[in-house]
Amino acid sequence: MAPDTPDAYDALLSKYRRISGLQDAGQLLSWDQQVMMPPGGTGARSRQLSALSATSHELLTADEIGDLLGSVEGNVSGEQAAAVREIRRQYDRATRVPTELVEQISIATSEALPVWEQAKADDDFDAFTPTLQKMVELKREYAAHIDPDEDPYAVLFADYEPYLELDTADRVLSRLRDNLVPLIEDIAASDVAAPSPFAGTFDTSTQNDLSRDALSLLGYDWNRGRLDSSSHPFSTGTQFDSRITTRFKETDPIDALTATIHEFGHATYTLGLPQDKYGSPLGESRDLTVHESQSRLWENHIGRSRAFWERFLPSFKDRFPQVGDASADDAYRAVNRVYDDNYIRVEADELTYHMHIVLRYEIEQALIHGDIEVSEVPQVWNDKMEKYLGIRPETDAEGCLQDIHWSHGSFGYFPTYSLGSVLSAQLFASVEDAIPDVYGKVREGSFDDLHSWLTTNVHAHGKRYTTPDLVKEATGEEYTADYFIDYATEKYGDLYDLD
Amino acid sequence: MAPDTPDAYDALLSKYRRISGLQDAGQLLSWDQQVMMPPGGTGARSRQLSALSATSHELLTADEIGDLLGSVEGNVSGEQAAAVREIRRQYDRATRVPTELVEQISIATSEALPVWEQAKADDDFDAFTPTLQKMVELKREYAAHIDPDEDPYAVLFADYEPYLELDTADRVLSRLRDNLVPLIEDIAASDVAAPSPFAGTFDTSTQNDLSRDALSLLGYDWNRGRLDSSSHPFSTGTQFDSRITTRFKETDPIDALTATIHEFGHATYTLGLPQDKYGSPLGESRDLTVHESQSRLWENHIGRSRAFWERFLPSFKDRFPQVGDASADDAYRAVNRVYDDNYIRVEADELTYHMHIVLRYEIEQALIHGDIEVSEVPQVWNDKMEKYLGIRPETDAEGCLQDIHWSHGSFGYFPTYSLGSVLSAQLFASVEDAIPDVYGKVREGSFDDLHSWLTTNVHAHGKRYTTPDLVKEATGEEYTADYFIDYATEKYGDLYDLD
Repeated sequence: MAPDTPDAYDALLSKYRRISGLQDAGQLLSWDQQVMMPPGGTGARSRQLSALSATSHELLTADEIGDLLGSVEGNVSGEQAAAVREIRRQYDRATRVPTELVEQISIATSEALPVWEQAKADDDFDAFTPTLQKMVELKREYAAHIDPDEDPYAVLFADYEPYLELDTADRVLSRLRDNLVPLIEDIAASDVAAPSPFAGTFDTSTQNDLSRDALSLLGYDWNRGRLDSSSHPFSTGTQFDSRITTRFKETDPIDALTATIHEFGHATYTLGLPQDKYGSPLGESRDLTVHESQSRLWENHIGRSRAFWERFLPSFKDRFPQVGDASADDAYRAVNRVYDDNYIRVEADELTYHMHIVLRYEIEQALIHGDIEVSEVPQVWNDKMEKYLGIRPETDAEGCLQDIHWSHGSFGYFPTYSLGSVLSAQLFASVEDAIPDVYGKVREGSFDDLHSWLTTNVHAHGKRYTTPDLVKEATGEEYTADYFIDYATEKYGDLYDLD
Repeated sequence: MAPDTPDAYDALLSKYRRISGLQDAGQLLSWDQQVMMPPGGTGARSRQLSALSATSHELLTADEIGDLLGSVEGNVSGEQAAAVREIRRQYDRATRVPTELVEQISIATSEALPVWEQAKADDDFDAFTPTLQKMVELKREYAAHIDPDEDPYAVLFADYEPYLELDTADRVLSRLRDNLVPLIEDIAASDVAAPSPFAGTFDTSTQNDLSRDALSLLGYDWNRGRLDSSSHPFSTGTQFDSRITTRFKETDPIDALTATIHEFGHATYTLGLPQDKYGSPLGESRDLTVHESQSRLWENHIGRSRAFWERFLPSFKDRFPQVGDASADDAYRAVNRVYDDNYIRVEADELTYHMHIVLRYEIEQALIHGDIEVSEVPQVWNDKMEKYLGIRPETDAEGCLQDIHWSHGSFGYFPTYSLGSVLSAQLFASVEDAIPDVYGKVREGSFDDLHSWLTTNVHAHGKRYTTPDLVKEATGEEYTADYFIDYATEKYGDLYDLD
């Protein structure tokens, strides 16, 4: 180790801490904008956010960061090498893209949002075509700057999941398609009908109380968090303060409840990061796949489990006596109902959800590769919908215009939703090995062992390991879809009396 | 004008806008910390705030700012010259104080806060002595860096009120002392007893509704603001989003109501700043004297007026039928009651308040000049309290330990409270000249003309004028205490039947 390496490492981390503090400030401003800010505040807020992002971009791309990286690389090991690896990755991606292109993308994104909103409201894809075309071109250009020799879609995907190869995504999504399409067909053909104990009207303020009941039961640390509502549920924050939002529909109390539990899963990850590493990559969560594994684990493997409903249904009935004499089994079957007539991703059940993702993954890849034209998207979308789910949207508003992602230029984001669900099943298999009778504990309302396992094996590592290494560290195995396929086949085979 | 001046001016303003965006982000983080943040968030929040303040300090003191200032000064006029004057002032003050001293003061402040809190809780001034001593020394050193040839207290005072000379403060505070001490004595000797229609217990959630009633009546723009509660009332924000907090005491509904109206006054100033100047000194409020003039104008000249209570008492009774058949005159007399037995500044009435300020002003000046020792503060405090208000605190907790300001190192802040009240009377005299029967409009619940006058004559100027020039611009006269003395003598002479 060069004599001045420790100093250089400290100097690098100190600069990174500053950048990280500004970015966390930006996150709080965004939370406030979505949850607290009066409408008139928009004009100043966008300028405050752009001051923050421009400043942290300048600090990250400063020559001094490059020099410090150069002087520590090869001279540090273990945790320090991991921190340096992560800063290097950010530095390289930030410096390779010209500032003008970053600005162009940022402007295009702001301009695209209202165009997409209007096109969706008018069910008019043609009105969105030039905007989407522009966005595809800008993101291709962006990818070429980062790595001209790499598949541009792989480069974009790596913005959201830097360490799982695109081959892995391909393999996993193919397996989901090959296994789930026939399973969904069998379910559609089954004559088992799920009960509907949650039909009717449910006061939203009482739903809010119910969400709080669920969070308290699951072990949310109210000393380091809060629950609010916003038009789209999300979670944001740090290991000191990780907040949840949800939203309430009067006709569907399960929607808010599962959204709350999903966001709780994200928040537990953030809250499990080491506090003494705050401001370093070692105190940051891994990327979207691992984050989504935590939200899905709590949403699906806990919140949609029979054991959870055995425990929680009495609380539900306390808040909403109207559900009457519904049994825990009724509730379990209702919250796991597979819908064969749903066009909307965010309303999809645990199985068909992945077909929504596969379809988007295939289309966005074809767009970035230039294999299809933007104008062909509606046709391709509807054909794939018919092929994978046996339904054909009648409008683009409930078809290819439904999601905000492409108007953000977020190509490569969708697959991480499925990759995370798949990982949640793999992690939960390890949990079941490590904690005897974990569902017995769920029935008792005891979640400490589960929190402890997840914190020790996933959260506490921060960005110490890459995604594949983290999976190996936590489960002893390579990342695999086996557990998810087994879990889904068994659970839904049982629910729908399939042979 | 040098050929490149317009470019240099734009470049300077663009840099300033960035700094201002970061500072506004910091304000939002502080609001969140006091209003929304779960307690566990403190650890990260202080680091986010210090990242923001360190970064904006570095951006402000960059050589480039000095160079740009040098190339525009003398080559711009009017509004541009005013913006440059304000940036120059900030730049000079920021560059003259060594970074180490800034850090020392920042650390000393963080350390002082819990020491002061404990000393106050224990009524143990000795425990606070070394901390206060340290703070006095640091602030003397700070003043010497900024201007070694100037009275150090004048330098500190200029942090809060840069353009009114300390001589002006001296003159005004002396007049207040000379005129109000005998008036307060006459009131104490009077046998007029104020009615007490607001005695009893008042539900705090209903008090919250009542505060909202008052804000809506006065014309708060809910599209650009919100009301929350916090342990100390404050207002913060921009011309796009200016928020108010208040706090509720079950036994005193007038306390929350007047605090709300006071903070509303601050918020109207911010909301009246020009939106197209956001991010420039021309879009920023003038300093503490002018700010306090706006809060006091609304609190005292409106909220404590007979006309306001004629209008508002029915709303009060709707919320709290328990006040029974109290008349508007009863309410008016109750909210203007002068207390001859109150030791606490923040609970003081409109008259004795200024004696609390005079006392602090004299003591902090003596401390900074070295005319008294820190250990003498309790004795001097109690002697002055007896001299000015005829009462002697039995404990230091309700004497010299009551305020947080000195533990913050905020020497020179207190006088701006009185200077602002004095200005509010002067401005209101101009309002009465400009708007015929302004109190008739208050009785009708019509505040548009008042808002319009204040916005046009005060708010819309931003930092275009210095404080003395702004006063002249708005009132046509020099800043003077005449109006306040006349107002107070007449109002309280009438209330207490003085000759």
